[in-house]
Amino acid sequence: MERRRVGILGATGMVGQRFIQLLHHHPWFEIAWLAASDRSAGKRFDEACRWKLDTPLPAGIAAMTLMPNVPEGMPSGELPKIIFAALDSAIAYELEPKFAAAGCAVISNSSAFRMTADVPLVVPEVNADHLELLESQVWRKDAGGYIVTNPNCCAIGLSMALAPLAQRFGIESLFVSTMQAVSGAGYPGVASLDILGNVIPFIQNEEEKLQEECGKLLGTLVGDRVALAPMKLSAHCNRVAVEDGHTECVSIKLKRPATYEQILNAWADFQPLAGIHEGKPLPSAPDQPVEYAGEMDRPQPRLDRMRGNGMAATVGRLRPCNLLDWKFVVLSHNTIRGAAGAAVLNAELLAMLGKLDWKKWTASAHKHVTAALV
Amino acid sequence: MERRRVGILGATGMVGQRFIQLLHHHPWFEIAWLAASDRSAGKRFDEACRWKLDTPLPAGIAAMTLMPNVPEGMPSGELPKIIFAALDSAIAYELEPKFAAAGCAVISNSSAFRMTADVPLVVPEVNADHLELLESQVWRKDAGGYIVTNPNCCAIGLSMALAPLAQRFGIESLFVSTMQAVSGAGYPGVASLDILGNVIPFIQNEEEKLQEECGKLLGTLVGDRVALAPMKLSAHCNRVAVEDGHTECVSIKLKRPATYEQILNAWADFQPLAGIHEGKPLPSAPDQPVEYAGEMDRPQPRLDRMRGNGMAATVGRLRPCNLLDWKFVVLSHNTIRGAAGAAVLNAELLAMLGKLDWKKWTASAHKHVTAALV
Amino acid sequence: MERRRVGILGATGMVGQRFIQLLHHHPWFEIAWLAASDRSAGKRFDEACRWKLDTPLPAGIAAMTLMPNVPEGMPSGELPKIIFAALDSAIAYELEPKFAAAGCAVISNSSAFRMTADVPLVVPEVNADHLELLESQVWRKDAGGYIVTNPNCCAIGLSMALAPLAQRFGIESLFVSTMQAVSGAGYPGVASLDILGNVIPFIQNEEEKLQEECGKLLGTLVGDRVALAPMKLSAHCNRVAVEDGHTECVSIKLKRPATYEQILNAWADFQPLAGIHEGKPLPSAPDQPVEYAGEMDRPQPRLDRMRGNGMAATVGRLRPCNLLDWKFVVLSHNTIRGAAGAAVLNAELLAMLGKLDWKKWTASAHKHVTAALV
Amino acid sequence: MERRRVGILGATGMVGQRFIQLLHHHPWFEIAWLAASDRSAGKRFDEACRWKLDTPLPAGIAAMTLMPNVPEGMPSGELPKIIFAALDSAIAYELEPKFAAAGCAVISNSSAFRMTADVPLVVPEVNADHLELLESQVWRKDAGGYIVTNPNCCAIGLSMALAPLAQRFGIESLFVSTMQAVSGAGYPGVASLDILGNVIPFIQNEEEKLQEECGKLLGTLVGDRVALAPMKLSAHCNRVAVEDGHTECVSIKLKRPATYEQILNAWADFQPLAGIHEGKPLPSAPDQPVEYAGEMDRPQPRLDRMRGNGMAATVGRLRPCNLLDWKFVVLSHNTIRGAAGAAVLNAELLAMLGKLDWKKWTASAHKHVTAALV
Repeated sequence: MERRRVGILGATGMVGQRFIQLLHHHPWFEIAWLAASDRSAGKRFDEACRWKLDTPLPAGIAAMTLMPNVPEGMPSGELPKIIFAALDSAIAYELEPKFAAAGCAVISNSSAFRMTADVPLVVPEVNADHLELLESQVWRKDAGGYIVTNPNCCAIGLSMALAPLAQRFGIESLFVSTMQAVSGAGYPGVASLDILGNVIPFIQNEEEKLQEECGKLLGTLVGDRVALAPMKLSAHCNRVAVEDGHTECVSIKLKRPATYEQILNAWADFQPLAGIHEGKPLPSAPDQPVEYAGEMDRPQPRLDRMRGNGMAATVGRLRPCNLLDWKFVVLSHNTIRGAAGAAVLNAELLAMLGKLDWKKWTASAHKHVTAALV
Repeated sequence: MERRRVGILGATGMVGQRFIQLLHHHPWFEIAWLAASDRSAGKRFDEACRWKLDTPLPAGIAAMTLMPNVPEGMPSGELPKIIFAALDSAIAYELEPKFAAAGCAVISNSSAFRMTADVPLVVPEVNADHLELLESQVWRKDAGGYIVTNPNCCAIGLSMALAPLAQRFGIESLFVSTMQAVSGAGYPGVASLDILGNVIPFIQNEEEKLQEECGKLLGTLVGDRVALAPMKLSAHCNRVAVEDGHTECVSIKLKRPATYEQILNAWADFQPLAGIHEGKPLPSAPDQPVEYAGEMDRPQPRLDRMRGNGMAATVGRLRPCNLLDWKFVVLSHNTIRGAAGAAVLNAELLAMLGKLDWKKWTASAHKHVTAALV
Repeated sequence: MERRRVGILGATGMVGQRFIQLLHHHPWFEIAWLAASDRSAGKRFDEACRWKLDTPLPAGIAAMTLMPNVPEGMPSGELPKIIFAALDSAIAYELEPKFAAAGCAVISNSSAFRMTADVPLVVPEVNADHLELLESQVWRKDAGGYIVTNPNCCAIGLSMALAPLAQRFGIESLFVSTMQAVSGAGYPGVASLDILGNVIPFIQNEEEKLQEECGKLLGTLVGDRVALAPMKLSAHCNRVAVEDGHTECVSIKLKRPATYEQILNAWADFQPLAGIHEGKPLPSAPDQPVEYAGEMDRPQPRLDRMRGNGMAATVGRLRPCNLLDWKFVVLSHNTIRGAAGAAVLNAELLAMLGKLDWKKWTASAHKHVTAALV
Repeated sequence: MERRRVGILGATGMVGQRFIQLLHHHPWFEIAWLAASDRSAGKRFDEACRWKLDTPLPAGIAAMTLMPNVPEGMPSGELPKIIFAALDSAIAYELEPKFAAAGCAVISNSSAFRMTADVPLVVPEVNADHLELLESQVWRKDAGGYIVTNPNCCAIGLSMALAPLAQRFGIESLFVSTMQAVSGAGYPGVASLDILGNVIPFIQNEEEKLQEECGKLLGTLVGDRVALAPMKLSAHCNRVAVEDGHTECVSIKLKRPATYEQILNAWADFQPLAGIHEGKPLPSAPDQPVEYAGEMDRPQPRLDRMRGNGMAATVGRLRPCNLLDWKFVVLSHNTIRGAAGAAVLNAELLAMLGKLDWKKWTASAHKHVTAALV
């Protein structure tokens, strides 16, 4: 099978590097175009980028020339139709629509359009059916392009742990207190003087994002809009001295009573992509999206973040709550599952649904596949 | 004024070392006796102890000989009547009553007797009046001795932040998620392989202690028993890579509505020891027991734990809660305010109340001073 | 090809866990026997072991029963003839000879016998020819068994960086200052209170080991003894807050002058196992044993320790020295290349040399292969 | 005694904050003027500065208005004649001469002029007599102003440990390998992603500074120039995950043989300021400039950096070196002794020498005091 050509916006940053790492040997996608800000455009990738991952920078990538981060000026056919975007929110707000208007599928990790009504905010295991929103985007109708987003790093792991509970028992309200890794702030990001031997009990806009994005993720697609889930969520977000992996302490009140075993079963049985997977799983999807760690002191970021190649959410410590119903801990890798890997999985789902395949795309194909998602 | 002779049980451990540090130049107390387990008894202090504090081990202490940790065998008059105890719970359970039976005031940091009905569990700023419980102890009646305890390190900072709110508005329920320093586990305590770049979302028995001890601290003295406060508390306890200072994220529901300003005022006005302080403050009491840090990203353990010489609780980030009423963060130094300093302050209060003064103690003196506490 | 059955002594410790991780899918070896101290023997592996690696404990291993760590009492044919040993030195001193006497090839990571005259201390890329020493061991002559050791974690990375320089230019003297990861001390090992925000400028016996073991590694096999390399080495060993990966700063005086390019070439050309590799490389041997990192601030433990699957040594920052000739930095993974991986590579070399193959072993085969090593 | 008015250039940075902390209650100096870059000038101090120290920002300082960092434009008599400078090197190069030309004593922590021939590079305990260089500065002759510098943070602790050895035994050559705290890089400085669980074996220009500055510090004043000490020094500089405190591993070759006891005595006897101190010690000078820590695993940054209120150098682990003569470890607080505290002590020495006292200064006074220094 021929691999689809893809491009990366914001290729030199932390999430951009993860995109390169995850896409380098990807069976379906091939990195054909890397773009960066004016300061770096025109340079070789390895001159502009301080590579910060512990796998080597692939030689072929290192030698690529960084393009300006605009769709204009590319020779016809050179601009990939699939664009992974790892941009700061303000820049994403300006640039992503340009690429959508140019007919590209923009698969974005930015927060700029997550809460926009006709932009899907998707975690494939949680709300794949929301992808249909993209069909109502004006760019889609005009040029075939669109924007699809994945949520904030904390909302991803949390929503994966919540989705099976929401489906079986309903969720009324929850507390979440996070302990987030420094890689979530990008590079240079958090100053070492601020975090060595310390906790920072504040991350700009993070509590707001976590609260509103979970409402959309667990919401219901009604026509061409998402009705937000009515659950109440109160978040406390903290930065801790961890390189990768966000840990979240959760207290939850369910709509219908559930026993300890019923909750464990809900997580164990959670295979939402099985209907699509049939015979051809998504390459980046973890076998077990939500793993339960039975040891009394798990999950832990250093030991559990790489479960499912960094794409699983690990839950643990399920126990009764004095105030709501149950307490547990959820952990996920914030720059794989919580950022670049989330976007790659979105792209894989879009490919499976035919939405990356401009020629073959037909209403019938689309209906056939999405039927499996509901 | 002559300084009272005091002894320290468990003098070589982390809390024992803090006792030495805090008592070395204390205006009211003088270290006269140090005891340790059989393994160390008979050795010079500096041979048995790996001093882990960043102030020097005082030369006079270094040269002292460690005694066996039993009251027997001391020549008459040699055993101090005031004993600070920094023992593991199982050992405290066995040894502390022996010292109380020998007529000593045992001021304990252990959890062994905290929830025992006739043992005061006291934070001076929170529930000084509970000290009266000690008068009903059998040892007190027999030999004049007694046991007084301070709470778990997390319960101290939390109860200090809660007390002014409980007094003015009442507390119905709260959610607490902690990020606790490694020094709370003693030495060697937490293995570096477990905490570097990591979070451990579990501390043995800690959530239970925090939940039940806060109920007793904020409870009401009724006759010779404490009626537990009826509030519901749900705790999540975590260990993080911080040397000293416990950070706690709190969501709280009050019984009576309170505005942002009213809550800040409740903390700012909190001067519960003023009635006793009059003209002669307790040496270790902070000027401002609860300090509010107005910056958006505070309190932080590295920057705020030493407020009030490590004896204040610092609160910050007061903001509305989606689920209960208000959210905030509280921080306190876990081995000063949360352990040794708490016991020293208890001792100072006992001294002020005449309860360390076996000869002069009279019912009239007692009534006079405790009247100021209510 | 049928995989050889192997056993692991000290299977529950940090190095024991690495043995399991590295051997679990090994093409030549199969874990058939796990032993532990009396305290753990008889238990299931997963009951006795706190698994501390970030790859999952294999289910098959988890269910194995731990055997007592003695060769006696095993039914005939049950005791594997290849034993990997991850024991503390004092215990190794007692137990390893028993297994050798029982006819086993003991491939040890312990320091107990490293400097014993007839025990090979081997890094395959550095001094594979020293393996011949094992033929003079009394156990070898009696029962076919023997002991082979790998060096201290710091000595391995250092000797790999030194070997190509020793071969081309000769080494007269060197200064080494290490910054060692906490995993080198095992579990629980270094207390978090000792290393968070701190450096410990002392590791028991480490400087002595590093100094003497490098002399033997770079020494010359003369008959049935190793003549120590006459170079002078002065070591400073430090513990730092790093989970895995030892960093070493080196100043070196060569016997014959070498230019910057000549040194880089010596490292780049270093392919000491090529003669043996021919057509069938050792499975754990890195393609490039010594990699040079050209960036000005490398190697770094977090970014470079996994080069060559954790089996390469990475050098960097080659620059002139004011006092000797050249300065550089060397880094290697201390529990893979520096411990379990080193022993596994030794075993692979022994297999290639026919020394794990009791039946087929003949003097002629032996001479053929070792000729390639000189 | 009236306190002298002083100003601080670069007041909002990490070293600027330390200046404020150390000068706030200083018996001889009073902060009268704070200056910052154009971006901050005109703002209140607490609006422009993120205070990062664990003692509170003094209220009086918080309310001060930041001035532009130029001498011009101040009303007559408003510009303090004593200016502490905490500027980046490039800015210091431009600004410090302006203040000197305006008649100010510029006491600088910057590297800009350290190696300039007529600028004193001084550690009071090491080379107080070098201050005489300032008399040959053109600014001094014109307007009375001058520039005095203190060395790089690593050079200070090292030179203090070396000075007594240089005086008694002479120094021929030495190796130094440093493990430096992140605060040395200022704020935001080192990114947390670069240092958590990591070592960076490179600090820009640091090895060069350490090598050349030690030569000047231990050099000899010959007329109006310093003859550099002829010793050879080879430095390896590393950044580690420590907040404060630089640790340095040293191997040294002396000119004349010295026993273990003789070296310990040289350090213990080192009281170079005693001649000046007579009856009136410098307020910031530690009682014992070089302390020896006898425990086998000391000095350690977390435990020893605050010796002498952060102004002492602590040495430890004296032992023979295989290559040179002796090995030891030296530790000092990099932002107190190694930066702001060093400048404050320089200012105190200048005050004692009459060089901050423009009216009273006479050649006779000067000769009298400097005689004590030689």
